[in-house]
Amino acid sequence: MTSAVAEAPVAGIDLPFVKALTRIIRAEDSYGSWEKLTDAQVLKDYIVTKEQRREIPIIDDPDPDVLWRVEKFYSAVAIAVEQETGRMASPMMKMSHEGFGRVILTSGRLVVVVKSLRDVHRFGFDDFVKLGEAGQKLVNEAKAMIEQFPQVADY
Amino acid sequence: MTSAVAEAPVAGIDLPFVKALTRIIRAEDSYGSWEKLTDAQVLKDYIVTKEQRREIPIIDDPDPDVLWRVEKFYSAVAIAVEQETGRMASPMMKMSHEGFGRVILTSGRLVVVVKSLRDVHRFGFDDFVKLGEAGQKLVNEAKAMIEQFPQVADY
Repeated sequence: MTSAVAEAPVAGIDLPFVKALTRIIRAEDSYGSWEKLTDAQVLKDYIVTKEQRREIPIIDDPDPDVLWRVEKFYSAVAIAVEQETGRMASPMMKMSHEGFGRVILTSGRLVVVVKSLRDVHRFGFDDFVKLGEAGQKLVNEAKAMIEQFPQVADY
Repeated sequence: MTSAVAEAPVAGIDLPFVKALTRIIRAEDSYGSWEKLTDAQVLKDYIVTKEQRREIPIIDDPDPDVLWRVEKFYSAVAIAVEQETGRMASPMMKMSHEGFGRVILTSGRLVVVVKSLRDVHRFGFDDFVKLGEAGQKLVNEAKAMIEQFPQVADY
């Protein structure tokens, strides 16, 4: 990412999931310090190139900032699910100190998404298109589960 | 609890849930230091009388030992569910620093138990009978959910 993102439109930045994530992240900006940043700048830490990824060590505790980004990513999935299905979804994340873990999203009594996490230290996406697709895939999975078992989601 | 528990049988100590909890706790005893303790002695910190409870402040972070006991309690529920239904169940706990939180148990794609936690600082039971009943109530709730939605638990 260079400062050019401020002027040029960025591929993928308008994908529904990326927009949901942007809203979540901006909602944390209590002091208005990101107001002048573009969406791409606000989300820039979600973009980790293959080369950058390889350089991040996966020993030791993951950076708290990475854990925060992972959490916000799944909160955005939850919000997008709610927007598309009208049903509340809530994420729960369980991480070991070594960067392994599991995240689940529940809606009512239904587990709509389950995801194993590993090497969370390196959490990130090649570009905004990949970020948007990865989030949307989980949203779609959640929608399919809710369609299949609506009575459990409503329980 | 006095040392008399070592000799006299203790009411509730043989309840199925209390036995499941005892097994879980003893499994953590890697150095064999609890081998000579009775079950009642091993579980003694789960018993918190009303008077003791009132004396525990609920400000600040809950004691890590309390969180550990809450976790083991729900692990015991998971194990008891597995014993009684043949289906794996796994707990996830999310706690705020102030002692509020939520714990869920899932089996397959089904949320078999949901429980809001509050004032975790004071987690404990009047006696082993109450402990056994509280655990068994959750186990029964989980069983009823699985019976109602077996295809979701098997998903």
